[in-house]
Amino acid sequence: MNAPAAAHHLLPEFHPQPVPQALLDALAARFGAQCSTALAVREQHGRDEGSIQAPPPAAVVFAENTQDVADAIRLAGAHGVPVIPYGAGSSLEGHLLAVQGGISIDVGRMNRVLSVNADDLTVTVQPGITRKQLNEAIKDTGLFFPIDPGADASIGGMAATRASGTNAVRYGTMRENVLALEAVTASGEVIHTGTRAKKSAAGYDLTRLLVGSEGTLGIMTEITVRLYPLPEAVSAAICSFPSIEAAVRTVIQTIQLGVPIARVELIDANTVRMVNAHSKLTLREEPMLLMEFHGTPAGVQEQAETVQELAGEQGGNAFEWATTPEERTRLWTARHNAYFAAVQSRPGCRAISTDTCVPISRLADCLLDSVAEADASGIPYFLVGHVGDGNFHFGYLIDPNDAQEREKAEALNHQLVARALRLGGTCTGEHGVGIHKMGFLLDETGAGAVEMMRAIKRALDPQNILNPGKIFAL
Amino acid sequence: MNAPAAAHHLLPEFHPQPVPQALLDALAARFGAQCSTALAVREQHGRDEGSIQAPPPAAVVFAENTQDVADAIRLAGAHGVPVIPYGAGSSLEGHLLAVQGGISIDVGRMNRVLSVNADDLTVTVQPGITRKQLNEAIKDTGLFFPIDPGADASIGGMAATRASGTNAVRYGTMRENVLALEAVTASGEVIHTGTRAKKSAAGYDLTRLLVGSEGTLGIMTEITVRLYPLPEAVSAAICSFPSIEAAVRTVIQTIQLGVPIARVELIDANTVRMVNAHSKLTLREEPMLLMEFHGTPAGVQEQAETVQELAGEQGGNAFEWATTPEERTRLWTARHNAYFAAVQSRPGCRAISTDTCVPISRLADCLLDSVAEADASGIPYFLVGHVGDGNFHFGYLIDPNDAQEREKAEALNHQLVARALRLGGTCTGEHGVGIHKMGFLLDETGAGAVEMMRAIKRALDPQNILNPGKIFAL
Repeated sequence: MNAPAAAHHLLPEFHPQPVPQALLDALAARFGAQCSTALAVREQHGRDEGSIQAPPPAAVVFAENTQDVADAIRLAGAHGVPVIPYGAGSSLEGHLLAVQGGISIDVGRMNRVLSVNADDLTVTVQPGITRKQLNEAIKDTGLFFPIDPGADASIGGMAATRASGTNAVRYGTMRENVLALEAVTASGEVIHTGTRAKKSAAGYDLTRLLVGSEGTLGIMTEITVRLYPLPEAVSAAICSFPSIEAAVRTVIQTIQLGVPIARVELIDANTVRMVNAHSKLTLREEPMLLMEFHGTPAGVQEQAETVQELAGEQGGNAFEWATTPEERTRLWTARHNAYFAAVQSRPGCRAISTDTCVPISRLADCLLDSVAEADASGIPYFLVGHVGDGNFHFGYLIDPNDAQEREKAEALNHQLVARALRLGGTCTGEHGVGIHKMGFLLDETGAGAVEMMRAIKRALDPQNILNPGKIFAL
Repeated sequence: MNAPAAAHHLLPEFHPQPVPQALLDALAARFGAQCSTALAVREQHGRDEGSIQAPPPAAVVFAENTQDVADAIRLAGAHGVPVIPYGAGSSLEGHLLAVQGGISIDVGRMNRVLSVNADDLTVTVQPGITRKQLNEAIKDTGLFFPIDPGADASIGGMAATRASGTNAVRYGTMRENVLALEAVTASGEVIHTGTRAKKSAAGYDLTRLLVGSEGTLGIMTEITVRLYPLPEAVSAAICSFPSIEAAVRTVIQTIQLGVPIARVELIDANTVRMVNAHSKLTLREEPMLLMEFHGTPAGVQEQAETVQELAGEQGGNAFEWATTPEERTRLWTARHNAYFAAVQSRPGCRAISTDTCVPISRLADCLLDSVAEADASGIPYFLVGHVGDGNFHFGYLIDPNDAQEREKAEALNHQLVARALRLGGTCTGEHGVGIHKMGFLLDETGAGAVEMMRAIKRALDPQNILNPGKIFAL
């Protein structure tokens, strides 16, 4: 990095407060075998898929219902001790790290489908169900839940981080797809927000306030999300391009024309190589778009023809089609494993993921300059992107024991975020702020908006016990 | 009404506080001719299109820029005096009534388009621009702003009430279409929320918190909204049905099949009669769906064929097509004038509008029972609905001087809301809470969620000067 990071970009030091024995005794009395202080259990609940480490929580409560969550929060609150919700552990920004100490509330056992309302295209679930479990549970309804962040995340975790992923270009993010919530507040009270109606103007949008609040304003215990009819026809296609720029320009025009493409993912040549090695595929090792079209048979054909024409103008090859569900699954699994493929390409490495998202017309500017910087740095990386939304991820593959490499990677990330913000974008399209992006959030919104967030946090959680130390410093 | 309304349903008594002369002097000094205390001006700013009346504000400031808004709020705040934002005055729930006294801040002069980003499908505007002005300003871009609540409302007012209307079934509401805001807080500070990126996970969703907050958390001064490519093909069709039920069942199936219909409006036979009289049309005086399809020529044809088939199964007539833009405009204008057509059908009357929205499968249940109750009451009414979203409006046409009629109409509204809530719906799909639905909001969300709203309000507006007395009592 050319200049030292501004103070607000430095990671805060973690000073976990010890948890009083009296609370551990009270939890043991209330929860019995549902509460564990075993080190292995605590360590499992004290890390995520990101690159930051912190001491584990002092105990883990395995909640089985809303009352369990409420009681755990009340007991912790009585001792002023933090509580951190835990779903599938797949977050990337340190969301579930016990940076101020406290206890973890694992909602993994709360994984039931509470009601399928197929006629209304809604389903109400507990927070611990994963997206794959949900789709498996509703597969006989002719409906599906489209949000797909890659990892088999829990619906609660996805709501809490405002997740999205490959299908968001067509179906939106958790912001658009969560209709209603039950949540437990900092005082242990159970509240309900939203209804199953598709729209509402009934007061403050508490549903949207809780979605993306990363467990800092309440712990979700029931979530109602929208479902969609399984499309009559689905086609997936691969298209290789002579350059990243050519691929990106094709995407920009596709979006500007309003083609309702369901998925459009960019994978750069080097990442295709990693994916081939990991998933035993023989994809052409060039910049690639992986696309999916949903609709009626005629509609899908029409969409694909339009995009093929745009791609052809940019020098894209003829589409290669994945027509059977099995072929499609194989392709998308390979895409979703890009992260693991990349990490395996450099044994012992950790990935530092970026998550910028820019207005669609700025995608090429943002991406190409950042590719040039990453190439110049000499740090190996992967590059994938939900480019239809203007969102992409570099993963810098660093040796975690090499401070210089980490610093270089963080510098690349800083330059990329600064560029995205200059271009009217955001530091995080879908991973959330967590610990890692608190400084970027300030850069992005300015102090006024962050101060408003802090005021809301203080009002709703005066003791600061709900996942403290995330999103902003208090 | 069978039973007296619960205490929380009674309209609060209005006790406007006098505004100190010192504030009026300070406003005059700061704003000169941009501030008026003329009775006619104040009265115009002290009423909306709803049925509730209150004394007018003590002064009206005509803001011309963000600094004007900030200074007006700061001056009012120094005297603890309420400020009420005013856009086009088309709200229906008393949003802009000075129920606790105070001054009106008219943003109507802030009606400029600040930047059109056609390549990104976004536009940034000042809050006072109306939706028709906006669409006129961008007509050469090949894009349009779809949200259409009927009235030519201001974009600021639409954002503040989370408005939607006829196109929402396809394009969403202001909730989905506002990307970023500049707003002035209660302390007069200017904050920025969101970015022009299509999605973001950057901290609390302050944009969505301000959208629908009805001027109680901040006054919007810049609004960035999404635009859409003008569809290649547009077709509008009318279909008459033997019964409301047949029409509604057609809509339910259309939505359940995932047909991306752009507009689907229900008008009952009696309202068609009023519309014919008012707009000099000869529509068949039967329950009617007024539909619009957007897409490619082939896509539009496919959608229309699917819906025609569903309609046929319910006894619907052959579609009558409005193919030219002029014919379409004539039809939609007639639809939008249904309110005025109805009010003119009973000289001197006022309309009490309902706004329930239910999950789509419950639409027939909710609607038919309420039609039966309205018919039995003897009160004339109109009935229109954005039925693709499960949202519909009765307008009970009452003699405002007849207390018994008002009571009867309010009782009908109560029964309808109670029914909608039992069916998993909301008391307000798009008009907002304002003064009129504060009791319904409590019924809908329960005390816990309303208490959370109050806590947010107290934290962000400790003096309670931003449009006080709306959404909830403090």
